[in-house]
Amino acid sequence: MADYNAPVKDMKLALNQIARMTELSSMPVYEDASADMVDAILDEAARVARDVVAPTNWDGDQKGVQLKDGGVVCPESFHEAYQQYAEGGWGSLQFDPEYGGQGMPYLLSIPVMEMWQSANMAWGLCPLLSQGAVECLSLNASDEIKSIYLPKLISGEWAGTMNLTEGGAGSDLSQVRCKAEKDGDSYRITGEKIFITWGDHSLTDNIVHLVLARLPDAPAGVRGISLFVVPKYLVNADGSLGDYNNTKPLSLEHKMGIHASPTAVMGFENSIGYLVGEENRGLACMFTMMNNARLGVGLQGVAISERAYQHALNFAHERIQSPAVGYKEAGPIIRHGDVRRMLLTMKAFTEAGRALTYDACGSIDFAHHAEDETRRAREKARAALLTPVVKGWCTEFAQEVTSIGVQIHGGMGFVEETGAAQYYRDARILPIYEGTNGIQALDLVGRKILMDKGEALTLLLAEMRETVAAGGEFAELAAELGEAILVVEQARDDLLAGAADDPQLAGAVAHNFMMLLGTVAGAWELLRQAEAAKGLQAEGEDDAFLETKQVTARFYFEQILPRYLGYARMVKAGSATITEMSDEQFATAW
Amino acid sequence: MADYNAPVKDMKLALNQIARMTELSSMPVYEDASADMVDAILDEAARVARDVVAPTNWDGDQKGVQLKDGGVVCPESFHEAYQQYAEGGWGSLQFDPEYGGQGMPYLLSIPVMEMWQSANMAWGLCPLLSQGAVECLSLNASDEIKSIYLPKLISGEWAGTMNLTEGGAGSDLSQVRCKAEKDGDSYRITGEKIFITWGDHSLTDNIVHLVLARLPDAPAGVRGISLFVVPKYLVNADGSLGDYNNTKPLSLEHKMGIHASPTAVMGFENSIGYLVGEENRGLACMFTMMNNARLGVGLQGVAISERAYQHALNFAHERIQSPAVGYKEAGPIIRHGDVRRMLLTMKAFTEAGRALTYDACGSIDFAHHAEDETRRAREKARAALLTPVVKGWCTEFAQEVTSIGVQIHGGMGFVEETGAAQYYRDARILPIYEGTNGIQALDLVGRKILMDKGEALTLLLAEMRETVAAGGEFAELAAELGEAILVVEQARDDLLAGAADDPQLAGAVAHNFMMLLGTVAGAWELLRQAEAAKGLQAEGEDDAFLETKQVTARFYFEQILPRYLGYARMVKAGSATITEMSDEQFATAW
Repeated sequence: MADYNAPVKDMKLALNQIARMTELSSMPVYEDASADMVDAILDEAARVARDVVAPTNWDGDQKGVQLKDGGVVCPESFHEAYQQYAEGGWGSLQFDPEYGGQGMPYLLSIPVMEMWQSANMAWGLCPLLSQGAVECLSLNASDEIKSIYLPKLISGEWAGTMNLTEGGAGSDLSQVRCKAEKDGDSYRITGEKIFITWGDHSLTDNIVHLVLARLPDAPAGVRGISLFVVPKYLVNADGSLGDYNNTKPLSLEHKMGIHASPTAVMGFENSIGYLVGEENRGLACMFTMMNNARLGVGLQGVAISERAYQHALNFAHERIQSPAVGYKEAGPIIRHGDVRRMLLTMKAFTEAGRALTYDACGSIDFAHHAEDETRRAREKARAALLTPVVKGWCTEFAQEVTSIGVQIHGGMGFVEETGAAQYYRDARILPIYEGTNGIQALDLVGRKILMDKGEALTLLLAEMRETVAAGGEFAELAAELGEAILVVEQARDDLLAGAADDPQLAGAVAHNFMMLLGTVAGAWELLRQAEAAKGLQAEGEDDAFLETKQVTARFYFEQILPRYLGYARMVKAGSATITEMSDEQFATAW
Repeated sequence: MADYNAPVKDMKLALNQIARMTELSSMPVYEDASADMVDAILDEAARVARDVVAPTNWDGDQKGVQLKDGGVVCPESFHEAYQQYAEGGWGSLQFDPEYGGQGMPYLLSIPVMEMWQSANMAWGLCPLLSQGAVECLSLNASDEIKSIYLPKLISGEWAGTMNLTEGGAGSDLSQVRCKAEKDGDSYRITGEKIFITWGDHSLTDNIVHLVLARLPDAPAGVRGISLFVVPKYLVNADGSLGDYNNTKPLSLEHKMGIHASPTAVMGFENSIGYLVGEENRGLACMFTMMNNARLGVGLQGVAISERAYQHALNFAHERIQSPAVGYKEAGPIIRHGDVRRMLLTMKAFTEAGRALTYDACGSIDFAHHAEDETRRAREKARAALLTPVVKGWCTEFAQEVTSIGVQIHGGMGFVEETGAAQYYRDARILPIYEGTNGIQALDLVGRKILMDKGEALTLLLAEMRETVAAGGEFAELAAELGEAILVVEQARDDLLAGAADDPQLAGAVAHNFMMLLGTVAGAWELLRQAEAAKGLQAEGEDDAFLETKQVTARFYFEQILPRYLGYARMVKAGSATITEMSDEQFATAW
């Protein structure tokens, strides 16, 4: 199994040249996030990811998780890795020092989180969910709840979960039936939830479940859902753990991938819960958690792509086959044009997605901490616009990248022991969970474009235009980006003009619109990185890495960006053909 | 688990309107292949596929295969299904009556084979390999070998295998090390082969291994390889089975998919083998088998796409979620635009691929039986050109179609019990085996286009132009196809002009050229089908199926064909960027 080496140079380039890390560091609130500190954190995280977490990945896939005596049993290796993660304070980077956090930018937590997800995505879901719980409680819970739960979640002593979905309901939260009844200062929660990631385990002493449930006489639909904290073990006044709170893992799913991430059916029976936010406003609370979680899943797409790339690259260097064109001797398959095309496709997607994801996450920090209120609003809208693109586009290309990873291994890629298949199987959940990509696409087109009449998108396209206008060393690429921006603008205008008269338009074009925007935005980020790399070289930095960034950008413009032409035509085609066939004509008996 | 219902109407449309089945039926050699006979065969095969074979698919995936006491143990259900297959004479349709075949067109065997592959791809590999062995022996073996082996292979009493690959060698057959030494009238074979599909099992009494091996003092490389028949049990003069011939399954691969298709490491030790064809000409013999096998794998891409589509369609009809646009009540998710887009993408790819595959297979029959020698040569070149496109393009879209199949199921799609994941895992082998798609693409660009200076391609494009010129009911689609043909012609001309000066060009553009041609050819086939459907309606046939064919064609032109714009640009970009980075710059330590 190839090692995982975090691409620290590329991460820093994305942080500093794209996501404005240096500007964040210059803010008083982030004065501790100096360049040296950032370097030290990334280097140490890279070490832990490589030496501690990555070696557990294959082990977890093979051993999986079991339900035994009413509790979930994880691979032994996961316990050791989790302990080092918690002891290293890795779960506390971006959180409030009042509750034990380190007060670093959210943005800085992103490359670190990427490393855990590259190292072991099944394992990494536990920290990812816990961080989501911290975010949700920080924004919505009472001071009392925060003081009880945040320090333990931030230290990593406890873990968090999201309990949304119920049987037969899937993405449709209006159907939540889980019951909550007031009982003194707290509530009693009864019901079943499905697809609960890390719903039970023994990596931590306690598990903090965030549960959507419905009060008696609550309005029907999503406006009658409330959010509760339901701990696995109740917490005594002195902070020690009390009684078991009837949060039972009833069964585990048998999944195609992320075998070692327990996906549980959770049963609650008269479990004590504490209201988060107001009654019947649970969905809004959950959404604050979901937005960052969606960025986190997009980041997982980048992370597993990186891991698959490194695995395939290693094989391509080592695997000897017949002579490539221009060689007389047998040699490594990386010499073959088609193998290079595949490797560069993996690399270009991954690096474009990384830059775009970090860029979106940077906006989250500015949305909270920029001095100017107008700017805060603008950054918030920018992050909101980019979130479904990051989640949707990065997880779509992760399918392709991990598939190419299998392909480069040839027949060995289909054999599980090679390891390439695991990334492919694991990655398949990404377009599904945390809101399917269909839902992301509708979110983009509906809430993020139609609702503000395209304003946030127009501002983003204006940023892209600035890059084009700035000229630079890559005039041809800039010209191509300029053409692509025109096409996106046209698609935006068509959408805004057409959606009023055609209620089916948004649903019909959403997927291709999302792919169009992601593809073009990825090109933009790589062009900016190529310009930055050229600039660093001009300043005297001499590093082959800076050279490869420029090749990668050119490759993306030649071999990936052209897809935008297709997406634009698909958007242009509208809804007529898609809605033409009757339900009955969709028959399997033809 | 949803049933599999063979799409007999679509198969007939592809046979009759695209692949010229009616013209074949009018030939004296195929006088038995009347329309009534074709109907009867397809209907009965559909019944066996649905009732007998399809129910074994999930069982096989769960139980897999085991190596026990030196032999491979298959799921019990596979034995019963195989027996019914053999007793029904399904393995004999297209073969020579002299050896027990039914003398039907090869083309007619294609929809029937598609049904087995849809019903259970892991199981279906056993018949597929056996048919390949029949083809190879029919064309290359001595009358004596044919008289011993063909009747039993054709009846299905025995099964066949291909033993090509060796450890560390993969696609590179020049490295074959397996030894053959002359021993009287026969040879002694010693060595190991890997990745041998259905290398051992007990579905049949005997297994006929076709083995590539090297004679002492044979020339190095591929010109020193000979082909041998090595039966699992020797055959006595009276046809009864004799001694075990030391063909040992040494281990089985643990694979991502097709769990119930045993992929064995095979050991031969002084095993008796019989030469097929001439010494040192084994590769040529094997290639006669490989060409049809490649069409067979393309057909598997169509078949598993069809199965995944039916599974997802069934779910989309049954799964109730929140109201779709234009509805007030919760209803099946098939009402949502994005779900329809996904289903139509699955359907359009599958039907385009089916038509293209059948079309190529029809040319195989005409290449053998057309009266005119010029036409025979032309059909042969046409089939040769289309073979890598069918193998490459249909197996590439099978990845996408089976992935969409998972996606439509949402979270349930990632849970193995739902069944959608199996198609996705099974399909992943298709771009790899029988020559990776990288090899298919090089075959297309190198041997099938550059070697004949684009002649066969030009003839195919001329056929497409005829469809455009013929006009018809779908003028807009025809005009778009016309534009796409121009683009392919340009790509062809660039390739022919550029390859002489740039030895890297073919390898760099091959994949995108293959995808370009597949995408445009698929559009052409669906346009022809739409025209045919319109024609049948005009003749009074009244069937909603004919209506859906026209919608499917339009959908393909709107939502799939536009990809050709991207592929063409990628081809146009050439080799410079792909070959720019040094091997060392491809580093994981950045």
